[in-house]
Amino acid sequence: MVLDSRAIAIDVMGADKGPGEVIEGVKHALKQDPGLPLLTLVGIQSEIEPLLKKHAILGHPKLKVIHASDVIGMDEKPTQGIKKKDSSMMRCLDLIKSEECAAMVSCGNTGSLMAGATVRLRLIPGLERPALSTVIPSKDHLFILLDVGANPETTSKQLMHNAILGTNHSQIELGIHKPKIGLLTIGTEEGKGTERIQEAHKYLKSLGTTINYTGLIEGFHVFEKDVDIVVCDGFVGNILIKTCESLFHMLKELFKEELTANPVRKLGAVLSMQAFKAIKHKFNPDRYSAAPLLGVNGIVLKAHGSSNSTGIMNAIFSAQKMLNQNMNKHILLAIAEANEIIKGGAA
Amino acid sequence: MVLDSRAIAIDVMGADKGPGEVIEGVKHALKQDPGLPLLTLVGIQSEIEPLLKKHAILGHPKLKVIHASDVIGMDEKPTQGIKKKDSSMMRCLDLIKSEECAAMVSCGNTGSLMAGATVRLRLIPGLERPALSTVIPSKDHLFILLDVGANPETTSKQLMHNAILGTNHSQIELGIHKPKIGLLTIGTEEGKGTERIQEAHKYLKSLGTTINYTGLIEGFHVFEKDVDIVVCDGFVGNILIKTCESLFHMLKELFKEELTANPVRKLGAVLSMQAFKAIKHKFNPDRYSAAPLLGVNGIVLKAHGSSNSTGIMNAIFSAQKMLNQNMNKHILLAIAEANEIIKGGAA
Repeated sequence: MVLDSRAIAIDVMGADKGPGEVIEGVKHALKQDPGLPLLTLVGIQSEIEPLLKKHAILGHPKLKVIHASDVIGMDEKPTQGIKKKDSSMMRCLDLIKSEECAAMVSCGNTGSLMAGATVRLRLIPGLERPALSTVIPSKDHLFILLDVGANPETTSKQLMHNAILGTNHSQIELGIHKPKIGLLTIGTEEGKGTERIQEAHKYLKSLGTTINYTGLIEGFHVFEKDVDIVVCDGFVGNILIKTCESLFHMLKELFKEELTANPVRKLGAVLSMQAFKAIKHKFNPDRYSAAPLLGVNGIVLKAHGSSNSTGIMNAIFSAQKMLNQNMNKHILLAIAEANEIIKGGAA
Repeated sequence: MVLDSRAIAIDVMGADKGPGEVIEGVKHALKQDPGLPLLTLVGIQSEIEPLLKKHAILGHPKLKVIHASDVIGMDEKPTQGIKKKDSSMMRCLDLIKSEECAAMVSCGNTGSLMAGATVRLRLIPGLERPALSTVIPSKDHLFILLDVGANPETTSKQLMHNAILGTNHSQIELGIHKPKIGLLTIGTEEGKGTERIQEAHKYLKSLGTTINYTGLIEGFHVFEKDVDIVVCDGFVGNILIKTCESLFHMLKELFKEELTANPVRKLGAVLSMQAFKAIKHKFNPDRYSAAPLLGVNGIVLKAHGSSNSTGIMNAIFSAQKMLNQNMNKHILLAIAEANEIIKGGAA
């Protein structure tokens, strides 16, 4: 057995499209990047091996299979999920805990992954809560929104931590050196919004040039190219991202209906098809990395449940980037520094 | 002077498009509905009268002009705004307070209107906070979202009140007899989300058939035809509606760019133009009524700052419906009943 401290565990089970799609994603990743670390495939061995054979990657030197007999269902509660010790997801977390792997990718149950990772891996010292971070496409840029659900009741200090976590995510995933941060609220005048937001605003300003905080933003600014990171609590972020998906989906259906309403419109739609394809491509979730659960000891990536093989491949590459660039070490140092500054400011 | 206890005060100042657009909206309303109550136009008399003359409605028996020398600016803080006692907006509120009018329509500064109405008119007994409610178009239906910003930190009891306020708004504005209510949260399994949401969920269930509560909903469901009313706190609702506007605006720009990228696409866009127009029309804010500030003593409608004359006319008609159908009396009774039920349940 090759021991590779940078190995990435892949939860093969729990994806909507089945283990076949995950294995295909692994194959694409291996093909595209010979520099990948060891990939540890975790799941039901009797299902995985025939798929590896089918894709002619059985026995590939960069692959290892670890059997896990159980699978966490998409609708299982986090409290039930984390009890399934021999599930592929919990076994992946254990591999990080035992340092056999440094990162994991899973398409499975988000609640169980968040709860399992927090309990089993614990938090990076200095942090109080993890945050789930996600890359969102806009017209001419990508931005990061966090927290989208790990921590629904986020204190002002935790909002400040989210800004730091998002900065590190943005630097590595989007390659932005000094990402511009906006704190999401309702009305940008000083003194508006809630006390919690006002305090977080104060904390963020007190961090000075250690981060690139640009101030309070409203919902109107979310899809404008003003900021690279939108910071909010997990309640607002989760509702926001899901509502945007819901709006987007509704508009898609509406366009389909209106553009096929008569032959002239249909012809018009055919001629302008490439425009619709370009827009659809821009918002294709498989183009963007999986959502990292930031703040835990280890790299934990939640890929979309409905990921295709490209989505899986991109998630593996994201994990690799986060490992290669030592994301968690940077987070540890940045959080320690920020905590020190606001402690000093309060004293 | 004709005294009409159902008179509607119109804040003529403070609209983005100027007093002319407001007066034009008044003219349209008078033309379309001879059954309108008295409309009291409040603002700078020397600006209003020439406009009335221009539109040949000077001296119209359904119109009255009241001079107010001041205007609240769009960027003024609520605390500053409500100090402008001779502003058109505050004078409109005073007309409701003195019972010369029963309703008002304003396109002006939202914060000042919310603060002014709450302070000057006070709340309907049994209520603790007002809620700003808004009609949102989806693919095949309209739904109501509230609170969109009157009360950013809403308790569980206040969330229950929002459901009742929304029910009354929906019944009158959309004519839905038993509107289906969803409480917005992050994960619909029992026990998920925050304690505040869980408690509100319990309260709403305990109201039984007095309202049509269908349970918790996630962001994914907001634009689906599952519910007629989406209940949330003013922080979430404000961010949500503004972010949706931001997403919608961004997509519009993106379509414009992609559909004009080459001659073939341009031709396609011309042929399918009617589809785009239909979609644009569906989401035209002037089609829907202004947002009522629910829960105050009096009918207070906030029209979009950028309303055109159709928007103003529709806002006047909404105010009329709310008056004719005694909305606030229904709210008073429904809130009293709900408070009694949950008081009984808690005992």
